[in-house]
Amino acid sequence: MTILSQDILGQHFISQQWIATHTNFPSYDPVANEKSPWTFNQATASLVDQAAQAANNAFVNYRQTTPEQRASLLEAIAQEIETSKADIIKVAMRETGLPEARLQGETGRTCNQLLMFANYLRQPNTSVEIDIADPNRSPLPKPDTRLSQLPIGPVAVFGASNFPLAFSTAGGDTTSALAAGCPVIVKGHPLHAATSELVTKAIEKAIIKTQMPSGVFNLIQSNKPEIATALVKHRLIKAVGFTGSLKVGRILADLCAQRDEPIPFFGELGSVNPQVILPNQLETEAQTLAETQVQSMMMGHGQFCTSPGLIIALKGNSLERYKETISKVMGQQSSAPMLSAGIASQYQQQTTRLAENHKTQLIAKGIPPEMEHHTQPKCFCVTAAALLQDKLFQQEVFGPCAIIVECNDNQELLQIIAQLDGQLTASIHGNDKDIEQYQSIIHELSYKVGRIIFNQMPTGVEVCYSMNHGGPFPASTDVKTTSVGVKAINRFLRPICFQNAPTSMLPNELRTNNR
Amino acid sequence: MTILSQDILGQHFISQQWIATHTNFPSYDPVANEKSPWTFNQATASLVDQAAQAANNAFVNYRQTTPEQRASLLEAIAQEIETSKADIIKVAMRETGLPEARLQGETGRTCNQLLMFANYLRQPNTSVEIDIADPNRSPLPKPDTRLSQLPIGPVAVFGASNFPLAFSTAGGDTTSALAAGCPVIVKGHPLHAATSELVTKAIEKAIIKTQMPSGVFNLIQSNKPEIATALVKHRLIKAVGFTGSLKVGRILADLCAQRDEPIPFFGELGSVNPQVILPNQLETEAQTLAETQVQSMMMGHGQFCTSPGLIIALKGNSLERYKETISKVMGQQSSAPMLSAGIASQYQQQTTRLAENHKTQLIAKGIPPEMEHHTQPKCFCVTAAALLQDKLFQQEVFGPCAIIVECNDNQELLQIIAQLDGQLTASIHGNDKDIEQYQSIIHELSYKVGRIIFNQMPTGVEVCYSMNHGGPFPASTDVKTTSVGVKAINRFLRPICFQNAPTSMLPNELRTNNR
Repeated sequence: MTILSQDILGQHFISQQWIATHTNFPSYDPVANEKSPWTFNQATASLVDQAAQAANNAFVNYRQTTPEQRASLLEAIAQEIETSKADIIKVAMRETGLPEARLQGETGRTCNQLLMFANYLRQPNTSVEIDIADPNRSPLPKPDTRLSQLPIGPVAVFGASNFPLAFSTAGGDTTSALAAGCPVIVKGHPLHAATSELVTKAIEKAIIKTQMPSGVFNLIQSNKPEIATALVKHRLIKAVGFTGSLKVGRILADLCAQRDEPIPFFGELGSVNPQVILPNQLETEAQTLAETQVQSMMMGHGQFCTSPGLIIALKGNSLERYKETISKVMGQQSSAPMLSAGIASQYQQQTTRLAENHKTQLIAKGIPPEMEHHTQPKCFCVTAAALLQDKLFQQEVFGPCAIIVECNDNQELLQIIAQLDGQLTASIHGNDKDIEQYQSIIHELSYKVGRIIFNQMPTGVEVCYSMNHGGPFPASTDVKTTSVGVKAINRFLRPICFQNAPTSMLPNELRTNNR
Repeated sequence: MTILSQDILGQHFISQQWIATHTNFPSYDPVANEKSPWTFNQATASLVDQAAQAANNAFVNYRQTTPEQRASLLEAIAQEIETSKADIIKVAMRETGLPEARLQGETGRTCNQLLMFANYLRQPNTSVEIDIADPNRSPLPKPDTRLSQLPIGPVAVFGASNFPLAFSTAGGDTTSALAAGCPVIVKGHPLHAATSELVTKAIEKAIIKTQMPSGVFNLIQSNKPEIATALVKHRLIKAVGFTGSLKVGRILADLCAQRDEPIPFFGELGSVNPQVILPNQLETEAQTLAETQVQSMMMGHGQFCTSPGLIIALKGNSLERYKETISKVMGQQSSAPMLSAGIASQYQQQTTRLAENHKTQLIAKGIPPEMEHHTQPKCFCVTAAALLQDKLFQQEVFGPCAIIVECNDNQELLQIIAQLDGQLTASIHGNDKDIEQYQSIIHELSYKVGRIIFNQMPTGVEVCYSMNHGGPFPASTDVKTTSVGVKAINRFLRPICFQNAPTSMLPNELRTNNR
């Protein structure tokens, strides 16, 4: 790859050292559907131990850093990523097949996220509580108690295949863990191991520049499940951030729960993101709704965790017009390569299974694939009764596929909402009259989701203070947390009460004049 | 029991109805060491289902109540408990053997806790975040997003044997769940089933008085593990609050993690609450420190989760003086009945095992028991080396027993701290010079505990905004939460983001003029 200003080493990064191991695994070029030019060293159990020890050693000093120092680290990482942006994007394009504009945007988002947490750390800490002593209280004197938070410890991060930057090496999990004061070990995603390496090199420079402890960030490369297992089971790891499939997420979550010391597992496992289209809106906006539906589901060729995969509406003429537009607009959408051969094959299997099911009707498909490994957008239709009977129709199909659920009446619509699994998001499409009329359905729906959206599509997760990207299981493994937005930091903090502490032993945020 | 103004029914309470089942279990009088006059109906799996359905039905309306309405419910419960206080305390004395003054205090604490949450609900909700839309932002318009919280759903509560009021039927778990908007099913503790019934009758009246939905509070009685299992595995239960032993807590936590839909399990499992006595303080205050140690460990005859069970100090003349005072003061302490025959027998086994271990030295014991089922306070001494080698010396002994760990030097002291299990609390006893000198040990210790205390004993958990009663496993199953203080409510709330929502669909706390 002479196009790059730096080589791809294919090694692991522990305590500011690049470390080689003996066996390799290849990486994949999804556009060409062949091996990429790079190979990567395979991590071992002893390397996992080395990384965990490094992170734990770093913790002793890193946990004592000030919020300002951690803000500087995050800013420096953003700066170094910006500096290496050209190489990072070239490599990520090769590894993921995602277009340049999308990866430009994702790099910007990743840096903005780092800067948002830096900004957050510089603001006054408002999460503290202080209760002053009252020695004269009867029957017992009241002690001085003050509540703050401590970082939870070394965090293992597993990035997502579909966001090689924003949900990966320096993505939301890593950034929020570092902001909290926790060292990080990233298990590089094998579908973008080279991108991980380049981002790690940016982090390496930022650590030096801001004089942070060696071992505050570590990268291990592997495509073997037993390495993931060894990492989450390591006694020095105190929390796990994960974005990926329900299957793998559940395995790792179970391992975390079964440890001698169970640890929190924060898994964002995806969703079908139901789109509930209410009748008045459908009547007047069928065509626009169908166009925005296809546009949203084609983002990242359907490989977004917020891709709208389930459309719920009352049957009738308006829905027929909606379906016609879906069919027309989808007919103009290209087939394209997926992130990996495995993901493409999974999509093929799931859509074939849907097509072969006698309860579904295939109502729309994209331009036929030019190459065998490309996948074709698809839209199916089922009755509400069929969905109520078979969980198959509620399973996430990772890729450009959606299912329209036709309800006979409001009663069936409510039944569908009531039996939905947990979701990252759901959208309500309705005018004022619809929303007035369907309040109870909307309330019910809100208890199924982490984010409820009105008259907008779910793709495009805003990185801000008020975002929640999570939801009831299986959308995420911890309904009480978010993986996007500043509140993501709370996953890696835990409360501590200081009772009757001398000022010298109080953290800054608990030192006040009102003692 | 003609002393009571009301009968003990021995039944279950579901949806405002008292319900009988066919088989019974007896209850125990620990002072007389015999069966109490009461028997209780044994719950069945179908009764558990009935209770879960009732709670879930109640949820649909209860989740829509205003904070003010929930505050009124909590106040009414406090009022009704106050009204029935005489009966409740009589019954609790008979069931637990705890003295009247202690139960008076605990009743007050329980009511204060209800009132604290009522007060909290009436304050402005400060946990929201609002980001206003910016339609002109480039490259993409910024949506309006607003973050608030929803109640998590029906909660199962398992109270503690040692706090029949404050950590039981209307204790911290129930109160914080009701405050959050979650219906509750309490599995009555078999060691104070009659107390649970009387408190439930108070709640029953409060529900009627405040016109809350039937099923918002339910009580089932059982002493069978399979009923606990059925409850935590029930698909309509969305979270569990538990206070009890590590053994039972771990079993229930594992069941929650293994469900098709895993749910959060908030277990407070106890602790040995290390007391680290630093050398200068020990030199000048040996006698006072020993007196307060014995006083603290004798509270509730050692049956407090914050009982100080491990004393860590440097060996030398000062520690010898400390041990002499411990021996003298403990020699004046009475033996007494425990909460149950099972708890007494467990205490006997554990202290016998310690006495028979060749590495321990029994340095103090209380007045010999007058009756066979009474237990005698004890204090052992071991070397730091012994503790480092054998986890036995770090196991919680539930009852009036403590172990002094003698360290040869600061190095050993740090080693002991570094290998401690997770704890609810630890205390540092030191003067200014000690604290200056031992800063790194104190920092290390703070990462092992939920509450770090300076120059005070751990018993007596203040119910306030800044309390944290939890800690790293095995002190609790979720280091990120507290079971005491207002923050306990957060266990039963989860975030939700409203995107582009019309004002009519926003909860009150998200409606502002700045849209």
